[in-house]
Amino acid sequence: MQGAVLYGPRDVRFEEREVPKILKPTDAVIRISAACVCGSDLWPYRGIQAIAQPTPMGHEYCGIVEEIGSSVNSVKLGQFVIGSFFASDNNCPTCQIGYQSSCKHRELVVGAQAPLLRVPLADGTLVPAPGVPAEDLVPSLLTTSDVLGTGWFAADAANVKPGSTVAVVGDGAVGLLGVLSARQMGAERIIAMSRHESRQKLAREFGATDIVIERGEKGVARIKELTHGIGTDSVLECVGTQESMVQAIQSARPGGFVSYVGVPHGVELNGEQLFFSHVHLHGGPAPVRRYLPDLIDLVWNGKINPGKVFDLVLPLDRVAEGYRAMDERRAIKTLLYPNGRN
Amino acid sequence: MQGAVLYGPRDVRFEEREVPKILKPTDAVIRISAACVCGSDLWPYRGIQAIAQPTPMGHEYCGIVEEIGSSVNSVKLGQFVIGSFFASDNNCPTCQIGYQSSCKHRELVVGAQAPLLRVPLADGTLVPAPGVPAEDLVPSLLTTSDVLGTGWFAADAANVKPGSTVAVVGDGAVGLLGVLSARQMGAERIIAMSRHESRQKLAREFGATDIVIERGEKGVARIKELTHGIGTDSVLECVGTQESMVQAIQSARPGGFVSYVGVPHGVELNGEQLFFSHVHLHGGPAPVRRYLPDLIDLVWNGKINPGKVFDLVLPLDRVAEGYRAMDERRAIKTLLYPNGRN
Repeated sequence: MQGAVLYGPRDVRFEEREVPKILKPTDAVIRISAACVCGSDLWPYRGIQAIAQPTPMGHEYCGIVEEIGSSVNSVKLGQFVIGSFFASDNNCPTCQIGYQSSCKHRELVVGAQAPLLRVPLADGTLVPAPGVPAEDLVPSLLTTSDVLGTGWFAADAANVKPGSTVAVVGDGAVGLLGVLSARQMGAERIIAMSRHESRQKLAREFGATDIVIERGEKGVARIKELTHGIGTDSVLECVGTQESMVQAIQSARPGGFVSYVGVPHGVELNGEQLFFSHVHLHGGPAPVRRYLPDLIDLVWNGKINPGKVFDLVLPLDRVAEGYRAMDERRAIKTLLYPNGRN
Repeated sequence: MQGAVLYGPRDVRFEEREVPKILKPTDAVIRISAACVCGSDLWPYRGIQAIAQPTPMGHEYCGIVEEIGSSVNSVKLGQFVIGSFFASDNNCPTCQIGYQSSCKHRELVVGAQAPLLRVPLADGTLVPAPGVPAEDLVPSLLTTSDVLGTGWFAADAANVKPGSTVAVVGDGAVGLLGVLSARQMGAERIIAMSRHESRQKLAREFGATDIVIERGEKGVARIKELTHGIGTDSVLECVGTQESMVQAIQSARPGGFVSYVGVPHGVELNGEQLFFSHVHLHGGPAPVRRYLPDLIDLVWNGKINPGKVFDLVLPLDRVAEGYRAMDERRAIKTLLYPNGRN
């Protein structure tokens, strides 16, 4: 089996990897229908996050169950399933309150940019679709695995409600699907912060009512201008840098809600500034499992089309090209077909 | 008129001060029935927060309206009123959503450790009690002005609900009234972190079910032991130091709620640690005005007795003694009577 392996900064190779096997009775192995490159894959790709050894890549997945361990009960062979990047038992007290990505038995799922994938804790992790989907539905279903689930969590954690005023910091795929999520939750006004025309266009398609091209202090000033000097009810921080976090916090009104869903890199929050901002702050690794059934349902029934974030489609063996295009911001998000479709 | 003035570290003087006057048509002047020393007064008293010049002290107050400006409408002469440390118009969009301490016209109220006090934005700021209270009710009514209002906000911002498990970091008067507030909100289990016997006793009286004497990592470990290894639903951080903030964040369960209500001093939060803690974080200067009507009602009807936090009562001219006792942690909170009662 051949799959994607990261060797170092900007060095992704498509090469022979061990075929995934059932290692524990709670595992399943699925045949990947489609995989993709995540914005968070770019941190190690760019060398900002160090890797200790050649690392199989990919953590967004959907596909057909090919094999199950002896104690797997609810997941059946042949089902089309979707799971999150954190496998979870979906059973412990933390899962029960909807924070499956902090499950006490959580395990990272790795190596999804390949034809086959081992998924631990299959019963807790995998959610079957109502059936085997038509090909054109696969990209949107794939987004529920992470990028949509994370954008949805961003909107939920930022308390987006019908009538809310929302700002979205970051025009990557997560930010764009944060816009879509906020629209689904009934936000009245959604301000997307973006300076890239193609992303602005998609943001508008997903429901953005305003675009702000300024960043940093100027971006904050522009948001204030658009909101009677107060700031927005909700801000979705979908980048993970010091600048974007500060911009997000300052863009919210006193008593407003700021969510942050990308692993912060080098972020330090000053306690006093946070205190006087009066915001609510919530984030963390998105508990995608909480949202999967509803998101699959929305996609299955054609209510949303989040697969539009894929603006580059490649056969898996050209995965390195997919990383490069995203790194250079030529692509929003790369879709990869293991079976060579493109 | 004589009142308290801070000159420098541990140098509070009781000395002649200008008599407060109506400066703006929206002002009122009230005759102070009782004043007190706040935990936050200790930051400048200890020299941790610098002062530029001799500073009139005191921001917790209740008393009789003695004079009103020409445009004051709702506040009447002779009423017994209570207000917050931040004067607010109670009218702007930020006030309307309950964040009066971030009111766009907010002004700090200063100089309440004196017989008379000017209160700006009187109509927005001052809340009358149902009548002139009996003397024994005055201490509890006074607490609604800040220390109870702040403890209440701590519990509210930490999402305390019926059945919640709660930890309170800090056994100062705010922490203790955080315990009382959590109890009022129906918390099932309230863990007070305190190593002082008299404070533990009061915490139990206010509703604490458990006491944890350990601090830092050991304190966190003890909280986890008491909560099936998960942490509490809510944590009230009522200190404002780096150690107490980290302890609070680590004591909450994933998806739990951490509030912080004391101005953070030297606190820097690491973004990545906060991210993986998965907590909700909310705090800031307590919007006491939001809670005043309800808190006055609870006190007036004898439902709560927050005045128990005052374990030292002095005539105002001995104010320096009151600061000293709190600084040395011999007193939880000092009550001051301008008219010499003790």
